[in-house]
Amino acid sequence: MRIGVLTGGGDCPGLNAVIRAVVRKGVGTYGHEFVGFKDGWKGPLEGLTKPLGVEQVRGILPRGGTILGSSRTNPFKIDNGVERIKENLANLGIDALVAIGGEDTLGVATKLDSLGVNVIGVPKTIDNDLNATDFTFGFDTAVNIAMEAIDRLHTTAESHHRVLIVEVMGRHAGWIALHAGLAGGANVILIPEKPFDLEKVVDHVESRFRTNYSPILVVSEGAVPADGDMMTSHNELDAFGHVRLGGIGTWLAEQIEKRTGKEARAVVLGHTQRGGTPTAFDRVLATRFGLNAIDAVHEGDFGKMVALQGTDIVRVPLIEATRELKTVPVERYAESEVLFG
Amino acid sequence: MRIGVLTGGGDCPGLNAVIRAVVRKGVGTYGHEFVGFKDGWKGPLEGLTKPLGVEQVRGILPRGGTILGSSRTNPFKIDNGVERIKENLANLGIDALVAIGGEDTLGVATKLDSLGVNVIGVPKTIDNDLNATDFTFGFDTAVNIAMEAIDRLHTTAESHHRVLIVEVMGRHAGWIALHAGLAGGANVILIPEKPFDLEKVVDHVESRFRTNYSPILVVSEGAVPADGDMMTSHNELDAFGHVRLGGIGTWLAEQIEKRTGKEARAVVLGHTQRGGTPTAFDRVLATRFGLNAIDAVHEGDFGKMVALQGTDIVRVPLIEATRELKTVPVERYAESEVLFG
Amino acid sequence: MRIGVLTGGGDCPGLNAVIRAVVRKGVGTYGHEFVGFKDGWKGPLEGLTKPLGVEQVRGILPRGGTILGSSRTNPFKIDNGVERIKENLANLGIDALVAIGGEDTLGVATKLDSLGVNVIGVPKTIDNDLNATDFTFGFDTAVNIAMEAIDRLHTTAESHHRVLIVEVMGRHAGWIALHAGLAGGANVILIPEKPFDLEKVVDHVESRFRTNYSPILVVSEGAVPADGDMMTSHNELDAFGHVRLGGIGTWLAEQIEKRTGKEARAVVLGHTQRGGTPTAFDRVLATRFGLNAIDAVHEGDFGKMVALQGTDIVRVPLIEATRELKTVPVERYAESEVLFG
Amino acid sequence: MRIGVLTGGGDCPGLNAVIRAVVRKGVGTYGHEFVGFKDGWKGPLEGLTKPLGVEQVRGILPRGGTILGSSRTNPFKIDNGVERIKENLANLGIDALVAIGGEDTLGVATKLDSLGVNVIGVPKTIDNDLNATDFTFGFDTAVNIAMEAIDRLHTTAESHHRVLIVEVMGRHAGWIALHAGLAGGANVILIPEKPFDLEKVVDHVESRFRTNYSPILVVSEGAVPADGDMMTSHNELDAFGHVRLGGIGTWLAEQIEKRTGKEARAVVLGHTQRGGTPTAFDRVLATRFGLNAIDAVHEGDFGKMVALQGTDIVRVPLIEATRELKTVPVERYAESEVLFG
Repeated sequence: MRIGVLTGGGDCPGLNAVIRAVVRKGVGTYGHEFVGFKDGWKGPLEGLTKPLGVEQVRGILPRGGTILGSSRTNPFKIDNGVERIKENLANLGIDALVAIGGEDTLGVATKLDSLGVNVIGVPKTIDNDLNATDFTFGFDTAVNIAMEAIDRLHTTAESHHRVLIVEVMGRHAGWIALHAGLAGGANVILIPEKPFDLEKVVDHVESRFRTNYSPILVVSEGAVPADGDMMTSHNELDAFGHVRLGGIGTWLAEQIEKRTGKEARAVVLGHTQRGGTPTAFDRVLATRFGLNAIDAVHEGDFGKMVALQGTDIVRVPLIEATRELKTVPVERYAESEVLFG
Repeated sequence: MRIGVLTGGGDCPGLNAVIRAVVRKGVGTYGHEFVGFKDGWKGPLEGLTKPLGVEQVRGILPRGGTILGSSRTNPFKIDNGVERIKENLANLGIDALVAIGGEDTLGVATKLDSLGVNVIGVPKTIDNDLNATDFTFGFDTAVNIAMEAIDRLHTTAESHHRVLIVEVMGRHAGWIALHAGLAGGANVILIPEKPFDLEKVVDHVESRFRTNYSPILVVSEGAVPADGDMMTSHNELDAFGHVRLGGIGTWLAEQIEKRTGKEARAVVLGHTQRGGTPTAFDRVLATRFGLNAIDAVHEGDFGKMVALQGTDIVRVPLIEATRELKTVPVERYAESEVLFG
Repeated sequence: MRIGVLTGGGDCPGLNAVIRAVVRKGVGTYGHEFVGFKDGWKGPLEGLTKPLGVEQVRGILPRGGTILGSSRTNPFKIDNGVERIKENLANLGIDALVAIGGEDTLGVATKLDSLGVNVIGVPKTIDNDLNATDFTFGFDTAVNIAMEAIDRLHTTAESHHRVLIVEVMGRHAGWIALHAGLAGGANVILIPEKPFDLEKVVDHVESRFRTNYSPILVVSEGAVPADGDMMTSHNELDAFGHVRLGGIGTWLAEQIEKRTGKEARAVVLGHTQRGGTPTAFDRVLATRFGLNAIDAVHEGDFGKMVALQGTDIVRVPLIEATRELKTVPVERYAESEVLFG
Repeated sequence: MRIGVLTGGGDCPGLNAVIRAVVRKGVGTYGHEFVGFKDGWKGPLEGLTKPLGVEQVRGILPRGGTILGSSRTNPFKIDNGVERIKENLANLGIDALVAIGGEDTLGVATKLDSLGVNVIGVPKTIDNDLNATDFTFGFDTAVNIAMEAIDRLHTTAESHHRVLIVEVMGRHAGWIALHAGLAGGANVILIPEKPFDLEKVVDHVESRFRTNYSPILVVSEGAVPADGDMMTSHNELDAFGHVRLGGIGTWLAEQIEKRTGKEARAVVLGHTQRGGTPTAFDRVLATRFGLNAIDAVHEGDFGKMVALQGTDIVRVPLIEATRELKTVPVERYAESEVLFG
């Protein structure tokens, strides 16, 4: 068989581990041939390929990013996108595709599957918000990076009697904030799933100072105050007298400073959360996903996504994976709340 | 309620996170009081206690080891051991015990439960070989430390065209070797569950050199060659004139050097695998175990052990946890074998 | 003797290592007594003390921040500040002070020395911009944290064909940017000492893309474009249509995006650079500074600052240390420039 | 010019950073051509080369080991070794050599220089024992790895009331032990330069236990007891029946256990100290060495070694570098001794 591989969406530690496992087992056990598609769905759309064999995947296991490149190109939003993909796959003699990506990339895979393209999906999202799998790779790495930052900030908070706010990734799901906050011993964790009450946050901050310790808050980029109108106070003047918006972390720092009289500083971790070498958890998960995905291709079990359930790698219909977002359940957040303050 | 807490067996990153969660929720949510028992079962046996409250658990989340100390004392092997424990618990007014430990510590807990002591168990083993839970905390930290060592050794192996052998923990179960080996891209992984064929190992080493790359082998301390007689050459005299085993890593290095003519070096990771700050995975798991354990105490749901199943914390009868060792299944090892060589 | 110890200014990994060495040698070798002053010069000013002995310094070597707390209080800007300090020192029976801090803290120490207070200074600045010492502790830790962030961002830049800009600390001196940029293999390094030509920066970015690699830029927070007027273009509209200012990293990202058509993203490392456990270099340097500082106190060699020259710890007059800022010399920047692009 | 580059001796983090800087500046600034020699002096001896240009050095800055390979081949111990090297250099049109290595490699360079070969030396030793340079790259990385291991072992020592002994590299010089021990807060540091008194070591161990803390000892592999006869008990038989040394760490553990009755465990860090990604200090130092070395070649300033003095890169005659070993001075060891116990 001749198999195409592509990676789409934001990069994520573990992508290379999947590619390596797919190719190593595909060549070594099944004798398959591989074609690397560049930059997500842009690759098959425009026929952009690169060689992909045992030589190309050597030494990539510990490396972040993706050797294939990535993009957010969606062929369904491009004229004749699907036709061009089918044509390119035919011209290149591709029998099946392994598509590694998140909601968008797998959404395209799901539709292509229904249009007769042989596709296997491998879930990828740093945010851990894909349904039908217990965890996605990249998430554990992001949480560890955020936790290390929190560990570092504790001593600064204590030394300066300051509030420190760490803004982490998570536009719609608070998994990174929840896990990094629990792991880092944050005094407050704010997630998109539960609009927060600013007064309560301020209470936690003040109660923490009363014990002579300084608070650390972890906040998802997508967290919002319960009272939407409060966002109007979110504006402030910049050095030149202009008003600006600064992200929820910065906004919170300003509000807390104003209400408590304590210095508050925000740190936005940003892209440092998604690059670089994966943790062991992510390398093992990504490798096992890759091994199972190439088995699925070999067995002709298409239209499926590989997934983690407990300690097993299983396959679920692609359509299940993207039907709804996996957000933090109420009881998981409540569990963490008892440690606040 | 007045609750005793103890940690037994080898230390393990995450013990302090459990203690902290138990005490924080116990005091904050339920209003319980706590007594810390020193050094595992030795504490209740000899009435050795230390204060344990919110102040004592501050700042311990990121710290390895256990603030309570540990030991391998088994009260059932000591005259009137059980009676002395019961007496001390009565004298101290202890209503229930939270026992954090591995097979031995939980084995004692199981028997004490059957003798009327209120006990909740929290599983702990760096080796991940406790039944009834998907993972134990400490394991992820150990695997990451081993993986980082393997990452470092790859470049030395390449630069010197040498075989490097990393001996990791795992006397009866090969989980650390399997996961660290997969994560580190080892060329051969040897585990106790499957006695190895030395000739095959040598073949893998030689095939790796033929591709101009240098091999890394990961071996559990409990791995053994299939041909038991070979172990006779494995003996050596120690400083006191007694016969002892030099360790399987060292033995393998000697055998491979002899058979391939290539330099081979063993590194024994030893205690560096079990100390120090826990990973995020272990801190979150240990914290969730602690929160659930104190709920169990509060609900009077004794004789249980908390456990991870998928992403849920559940409770299982203590007796299930220690009935049999959780070893690496044949198919998990086979899965990794396709990446050898 | 009875000796006061204080830490002033921004926190910095290694402060606790100095305190520990001062106290350990002071008590163990010389039999001195110690008083900890809280929060920099605020402590002696307001008579805020905490116990400081061998027990208090146990286990603090690897911890970031300062167990004494810090502040930016300047007694010379407060009515009767100096008199109050002298009075408090007399009341507490303090014979000498060890003042650990940067330009401001040591500036106060210099003046107090001239007014008859026995002071020894220990230099501290994450920015490495104190004259008369080859290095200050904290700098090596900051550079390593920044380098690790750059290492992580390389893979994201490559995978997305994006420009990534890392903004590091350094308002007046570019040492962190220079060393982190060299260590991380940045394609452009911008420092406050040399106003940059935006056109040249854009050229480097484009030449890097021509080789099919993605550029990483490291920029000190204090870097400025050579053409000052360009800063007016630094304004942009926020989500609500308002204009704001964003820091040099964000500004650069906008300019590069506009001029090259490539996506550019800025990451501001902020406080993560100054907290947490120190590197070995910083722990050794801070420990040696502390040991020498207590020797100076014992010898009555006041009005001095300990300093690193080559591999030796020496003492220099306090006044020398703060006379001028140590900035990056032209030739050191030129040395690094040959690696740009 | 056409320049050969080689790396000899044990591998060391930073070798690739030197190679990259030499090639990047050589090609970019001076227009030189390069030839990579494989495996140290074996390369020019046997004419083993590999391509070396800007493409080959891309992305190698953060990687440990050496892309050129290494060996301990000494052409002066091989028949006609020097003649063969000269012949190969002539055939390949090599105008000058950059030799990166330690005592042995630079010793060969020194002799070849005196025989008319154009050589520039770059010092490399993990042990930091090369004269004429303040530091060598690789040392800082080794010290940090050892320190992290010590950090991890502290919690295990405390939890189990055990003595932990960390054996680090350093056959003739105790620099790694001294710096890692200082940085890790070791209770005893033993180095080759000062034969130790076992009774005193036991005293330190016991005094540490009296304060209820558990001791960590750091010992260079080359440390020896003052009473040489004690070493006879140090012998043991290896797998082949030959007498060998079990290592000083293991021997110490046995002695301490026997004399104090406390459990003692040794951890031998071994090769993990010399592989993997370099620290920022080592990457900057190695890069600056490389930049200066290629300047030296360009200027025809042969027979020199680049060196660090204070914060400057200077050049010293090759012969000076290898004349004597740089060991730990008595006063540096005494400085650290006040922190023992």
